[in-house]
Amino acid sequence: MTHDTMKNTQTNIKESPLFWPAKLSAGAKGLSSVLHVLDETQIPGRLIYVQVKSTKDAVKVIREMKTRAFGQFLVVLNTFLLELTKNKSASDEKLVSIIRQTANALNNSRPTFPFSEVTSVVVGWAQKSLAEKTDVKMYVTKCVHGYLEGIRHRRLQRVMRIAEVIKNGDSILTHCNVSGELAMAAAICKSQGKKVHYFATETRPYFQGAKLTAWELQRMGANVTLIADNAVGTLMADGLVDKVIVGSDRSCANGDFANKIGTYQIAVLAKEFKVPFYVLTQPSAKVKKGDDMPIEVRDPKELLTFQGRKVYAKAVGGFYPGFDIVPNKFITESIAINVN
Amino acid sequence: MTHDTMKNTQTNIKESPLFWPAKLSAGAKGLSSVLHVLDETQIPGRLIYVQVKSTKDAVKVIREMKTRAFGQFLVVLNTFLLELTKNKSASDEKLVSIIRQTANALNNSRPTFPFSEVTSVVVGWAQKSLAEKTDVKMYVTKCVHGYLEGIRHRRLQRVMRIAEVIKNGDSILTHCNVSGELAMAAAICKSQGKKVHYFATETRPYFQGAKLTAWELQRMGANVTLIADNAVGTLMADGLVDKVIVGSDRSCANGDFANKIGTYQIAVLAKEFKVPFYVLTQPSAKVKKGDDMPIEVRDPKELLTFQGRKVYAKAVGGFYPGFDIVPNKFITESIAINVN
Repeated sequence: MTHDTMKNTQTNIKESPLFWPAKLSAGAKGLSSVLHVLDETQIPGRLIYVQVKSTKDAVKVIREMKTRAFGQFLVVLNTFLLELTKNKSASDEKLVSIIRQTANALNNSRPTFPFSEVTSVVVGWAQKSLAEKTDVKMYVTKCVHGYLEGIRHRRLQRVMRIAEVIKNGDSILTHCNVSGELAMAAAICKSQGKKVHYFATETRPYFQGAKLTAWELQRMGANVTLIADNAVGTLMADGLVDKVIVGSDRSCANGDFANKIGTYQIAVLAKEFKVPFYVLTQPSAKVKKGDDMPIEVRDPKELLTFQGRKVYAKAVGGFYPGFDIVPNKFITESIAINVN
Repeated sequence: MTHDTMKNTQTNIKESPLFWPAKLSAGAKGLSSVLHVLDETQIPGRLIYVQVKSTKDAVKVIREMKTRAFGQFLVVLNTFLLELTKNKSASDEKLVSIIRQTANALNNSRPTFPFSEVTSVVVGWAQKSLAEKTDVKMYVTKCVHGYLEGIRHRRLQRVMRIAEVIKNGDSILTHCNVSGELAMAAAICKSQGKKVHYFATETRPYFQGAKLTAWELQRMGANVTLIADNAVGTLMADGLVDKVIVGSDRSCANGDFANKIGTYQIAVLAKEFKVPFYVLTQPSAKVKKGDDMPIEVRDPKELLTFQGRKVYAKAVGGFYPGFDIVPNKFITESIAINVN
C-alpha cells in the first residue's frame, strides 16, 4: 500500500499506524503528489486513509478532526511539500508567497493546536532561501524532509527507551494515546520475551484509550485490558499497576507538561500509591513552566453527548477542560525528545 | 398521583423522586395493593413508575435493574407487605412459609446486593410472631412499616445535616448518586438563600451522575455542572471544589466504606488538595472493616459498550470492578444513619 512505502530503515521495529499517520506517496520524477492521512475517527472499526492533495484538503481533514496530535503536525509539514510540488514552475518570490498563504490557512484551521509554531519555521526557511538567493523549492523541501527524518529518528529512539523502561512482569497503565510509541515498545518487549500487561483507561469523553490505545496495543500483540477512568485508584490500591506511562501534548522547560484531561489525577494517584510515573515529552525551550500554557476548555457538548445521543438531563450544563497541566514534581522520569 | 400519596409529615423538605423510589398505594380496607417502583433506567428521559403486585414482579424489576441501591431495599421490604395482603386469609403457619419463600426468591434475584441481610430480619419477625402466637400478618406488617418509617425519619435527619454542612458560597463535588439526599439538601440550602454550586461526575461506566444526580439536582433548582470523571483532579488543583459529598453502598464499623468505582480516587485527590471529604454512611456492626467486604467485579460488557454499541476494538478485554473500598483515613466526616 502507498502509505507503507516509507520503510523504517533504521531499526526492525514493527510500526503502528498511529506512529506515522500521514505519509506522502511519490508522483512522477519523485515529486510529492498525495498525502495519505489516517482517519483516526474510523478506528477501531476501519483502517482508512484520506487523500490530501491541497492546503484546502489539509484544512478540512484537520477541522473535521480526522487527524489529531502528532498527525496534525505531519499534515502541516507535508502540506508545504504538496504546495511546492503543485507550484513547481512558480518564481521564488511567488513560492514564498504561497508558503505564507499555506501557513496562514493552516494556522486558522483549528484555534487550539499551536500550528504557527511549526508553520513559522517553514516560512523562515523560505525567507532565508529567498534572501540568500538559493532555489526556494529545493531548499524548503530539503529542510522539511530533514526535519521530519530527525523527528522520526528521535521518536524511534524514544520507543527503544520505553521498551527499556518496561521490565519483564510489569503491569503498565496508560491514558489517552501516545501515537504508536507505547504500542511499538510493547512489540519490542514481546519480541524480547518479556511478559507485560497493559491497562488502557477508556479516556472520557473522547474514548481515545478505548478506541486508539487498546486497539493499537492489541494489534501489536500486547496483552491489554480496558478500564474505566474511575478504576485507576482501586487498581493502584490493589497493587495491580507497576508503572504509569503517558504522553504529553506540550511540555515545558521546567518539566511541567500538558496532556489529556485525567492525566493530573493519575499522577496524584501514582504518588499516593508509590507507582513510578513516566511521561514522554518534547520540551519547548520557549515555554518555561506549566502556568504559561493556556488550557483549552472545549465545548461541553462533547461531554454531554455520546455518538450524537444525549446522556444527560436537559438543561444541565457541562464543564470540559480538554487538558491537564501536570506539575513536574509528580514525574519519575521524563523520556524527552529534543525539538528545539 | 398514587406514588405521591405518602406525604412527608415530619418536615417541609421537598422530596426528590430518588429519595423514596418505591411507594405502596392502598387498596380496599387500607390494604397494600400495588407497589409503584420508579424505573431509574428511564431517567432523565421519563419519570415512569412500574407496578409491582407480586414477588415475581419484584424479582423482575430488580433483575432488570430498573431499581437500584435504596430502591432495591424498599422493593424488598414492601414485597412482604404485598404478599401478606394477597394471602390475608392464610393461616399463620402458611404465612410464615410464604414469607420464607418470598425471602428466598428475593435473595436469588441478583447475586450482589446483600438481600438476605434485609429479608432475614422479616423472616425473624414472622418466626417470632408464630412462636409467640400473635397475629403474623398484623405483627409483620406493623414491624415492616415501623422499620421503614424509622429509616425514613433518619434519612430526613441526614438530609438536614447535609444542608448544615453545605455553606453559602460552597462548590460541592459529588460522584454517582445518593438517592435524593443531596438534591433535597440542595433544595433546603436554596430556600435558606445559600449560593451553592454542584459538580456531578458523569460516573462511567453507568453514567449515574449524568443521568440521575445532575437530573435530580437540576430538578430541585440547584446550580449543577456535569464533568468527566477525568476532570476531578484539575478542578481540585484549580481550587474549584470546596467539599466532596458522596454516598456509600455499604459501610463498616471502623468507618471504611464501599461505594461506586471512582470514589476511592476522589478521596485520594481530596486529601492531596486538602478538600474536606464527607460520606453518607449506614455502618453495619457486623462488618468490621473494608477488607471484610467482597468487591463485585461486573461483566466488562457494561464497560465495553454504550447503549448497546461497541466503543472498543474487537477482542480487547475489560476489567470492571463495580465498587471501591475507601479506607476510613480519607474521611473528614461520616454522616451516619444508625441501622443496627
